[in-house]
Amino acid sequence: MIKMIKGGVTAAKGFCAASTAAGIKYQNRQDMAMLYSEVPCAVAGTFTTNLVKAAPVKWDQKIVYESKKAQAVVINAGIANACTGEEGMRYCRQTAEKVGELLPVPEDQVLVASTGVIGMQLPMERICAGIEAMVPALSGETESGHAAAQAIMTTDTHEKEIAVEVMLGGVPVTIGGMCKGSGMIHPNMCTMLSFVTTDAAIAQPLLLEALQADVCDTYNMISVDGDTSTNDTCLLLANGMAENPVISEKNEDYDRFCEALRTVNEYLAKQMAGDGEGATALFEVKVIGAETKEQAKIISKSVITSNLTKAAIYGHDANWGRILCAMGYSGAQFDPEKVDLFFESAAGKMQIIKDGVALDYSEEEATKILSEPEVTAIADIKMGTEEATAWGCDLTYDYVKINADYRS
Amino acid sequence: MIKMIKGGVTAAKGFCAASTAAGIKYQNRQDMAMLYSEVPCAVAGTFTTNLVKAAPVKWDQKIVYESKKAQAVVINAGIANACTGEEGMRYCRQTAEKVGELLPVPEDQVLVASTGVIGMQLPMERICAGIEAMVPALSGETESGHAAAQAIMTTDTHEKEIAVEVMLGGVPVTIGGMCKGSGMIHPNMCTMLSFVTTDAAIAQPLLLEALQADVCDTYNMISVDGDTSTNDTCLLLANGMAENPVISEKNEDYDRFCEALRTVNEYLAKQMAGDGEGATALFEVKVIGAETKEQAKIISKSVITSNLTKAAIYGHDANWGRILCAMGYSGAQFDPEKVDLFFESAAGKMQIIKDGVALDYSEEEATKILSEPEVTAIADIKMGTEEATAWGCDLTYDYVKINADYRS
Repeated sequence: MIKMIKGGVTAAKGFCAASTAAGIKYQNRQDMAMLYSEVPCAVAGTFTTNLVKAAPVKWDQKIVYESKKAQAVVINAGIANACTGEEGMRYCRQTAEKVGELLPVPEDQVLVASTGVIGMQLPMERICAGIEAMVPALSGETESGHAAAQAIMTTDTHEKEIAVEVMLGGVPVTIGGMCKGSGMIHPNMCTMLSFVTTDAAIAQPLLLEALQADVCDTYNMISVDGDTSTNDTCLLLANGMAENPVISEKNEDYDRFCEALRTVNEYLAKQMAGDGEGATALFEVKVIGAETKEQAKIISKSVITSNLTKAAIYGHDANWGRILCAMGYSGAQFDPEKVDLFFESAAGKMQIIKDGVALDYSEEEATKILSEPEVTAIADIKMGTEEATAWGCDLTYDYVKINADYRS
Repeated sequence: MIKMIKGGVTAAKGFCAASTAAGIKYQNRQDMAMLYSEVPCAVAGTFTTNLVKAAPVKWDQKIVYESKKAQAVVINAGIANACTGEEGMRYCRQTAEKVGELLPVPEDQVLVASTGVIGMQLPMERICAGIEAMVPALSGETESGHAAAQAIMTTDTHEKEIAVEVMLGGVPVTIGGMCKGSGMIHPNMCTMLSFVTTDAAIAQPLLLEALQADVCDTYNMISVDGDTSTNDTCLLLANGMAENPVISEKNEDYDRFCEALRTVNEYLAKQMAGDGEGATALFEVKVIGAETKEQAKIISKSVITSNLTKAAIYGHDANWGRILCAMGYSGAQFDPEKVDLFFESAAGKMQIIKDGVALDYSEEEATKILSEPEVTAIADIKMGTEEATAWGCDLTYDYVKINADYRS
């Protein structure tokens, strides 16, 4: 029984947030956010697989794999602090030190995250001034979490947050999260930036295992443009303040926690895909009847990353040939002459292909189905019982516009 | 000594071409072409690696691997004859039969190639009427080859042809070619459609070996949109009419033939990349200082297929962070902190990154270099002496426009 509740990262007990307009790169908007837990948290994280890792990724990896505890997160939008060499690493440390001056948190429990332009150095005085402005403003109100979710946006068109409640050992436990997209999204283990907080009491190794497993089926199954960022970071903080019986083995509570975590992560991942740069539609691809889950994943991801298919979705064009083509070059084996293909949305569901050949379907009806803001293609490859879902978005003029002059 | 000469597929001795407006799908333009050799040719071909193979691909593979000889090629634009089941295969046979009725060519020496919409059946009466119109018009004139190169275009903005002459055993030998792009281009062994003819006398196994080796460094190194087509086909016909000493071993003549073939294929491949759907610029990426050629290939292809990088090239934006990012997620190993990066074009050359960190370069100067119709990025990864080059194009509004309603 997972209950949706109001709020985001501040929904769980003991978590506060704040945000500020630090003037990092954007003007006239909030561009820094901060999370803080009243008590130290077990922390789990997954990070970009890109060989080129931003300084904050390297910093956070050390905390997740060495300290394994964290109490604060400082986030900025506008500059990614990637390809910034030793100087970039020093700025992570200075950020953590600044937090330590103002709050009772050791430097190795302050996580940092950055998003924005690659290659520019952070203006450290503004980062420090931002922290000074945020610390006194930290609050557990829903509104503070909401403002933080807005402050971390770059090309996102709206903030993305969610909170759920689940009973663990008879005690209500909350998981809340926020994330931001919306370009350079082809996570290869994680999203751009996603922050999930929970008051669950759970041992750190299990927290990490739960997150790593979940990320494979959620953030790693979305793509906006096929570009795996240098900054992808997903952090999960658990402070135990719900006072549920500590989860220290894979019992029923663990399963229920994982299920609730899935709800949060899948929601955030889909939000990112649907709000991809320039997107007008969330494009979901389900591969069913697969022999293995891996096979279903490879095929579904190949379709959502096909530029030709994405452009057809933008045109509300039932160009199933491009879908079959993208399945065919995915690298996974299947028999093209056995594939059934369906389109589905709020406007209805229809079969387009049977055994690899087009049915005599109505183009008009298909276009109606493809004109909804969320459209799904379902491919049945009739080899077994495994399945997987991937999420992407359409490719539009605005994607090009946003990225032809992103830096200016 | 490779000499550029006038013409295309009809430049080599004994090759004729014709074209016609068959009304397959386009109106008011030529949409069918035919090649014919006065004598049977040794034939080599490479084809799409997509699991979903168009009927003409399957038909031609049989000829290349079984008959190993061919004398005619029939090509149509507008409909791809892909995902067309048994009916599509029957149409290939009927096309070959029709040619056999009008010319002294056995059915298993008639190659076919189609490009266009996936999933529609070919209108066979029009195909047959087209063949009837073309056979009497077959001619070895330069103009006939030129018209054929125009007839096979889909979203191409101009025809693509080339011819070269090379001395083999004291005899002038000609190689000519034509090809068409310009979307669904991410060849995984070959281009969309490319036809190369030569009057060289060369044994079929060597012809096939020469083509297969060359395709890896030319057509397989270009990408327009990352989508590997169902129809990719590259055919090479050699009729021996130059009367050079037959090349039947890997001697100097073979090497010279390969070198001339490379000139033809690289030219055609670059033409396709530069004329990619909606493209305003040819984008060349050279990776040097690699440990292995394979590594250099993986990295350079990753950069030319990055949507974010392609959009930045369209914006004439020296967004080197996206290039480094795309190198990083390529899957190949290298040290990001050792990379030097340069931009080069007719407007000049400048270094942007040294050892992974940006130099204090002039953005204005960089934009000037990136505003040319052909721009090159050179990445030195300082690990060895191998290198590779890949070719792509920028990502523009027009790419989206062309593909959002390609079928209508």
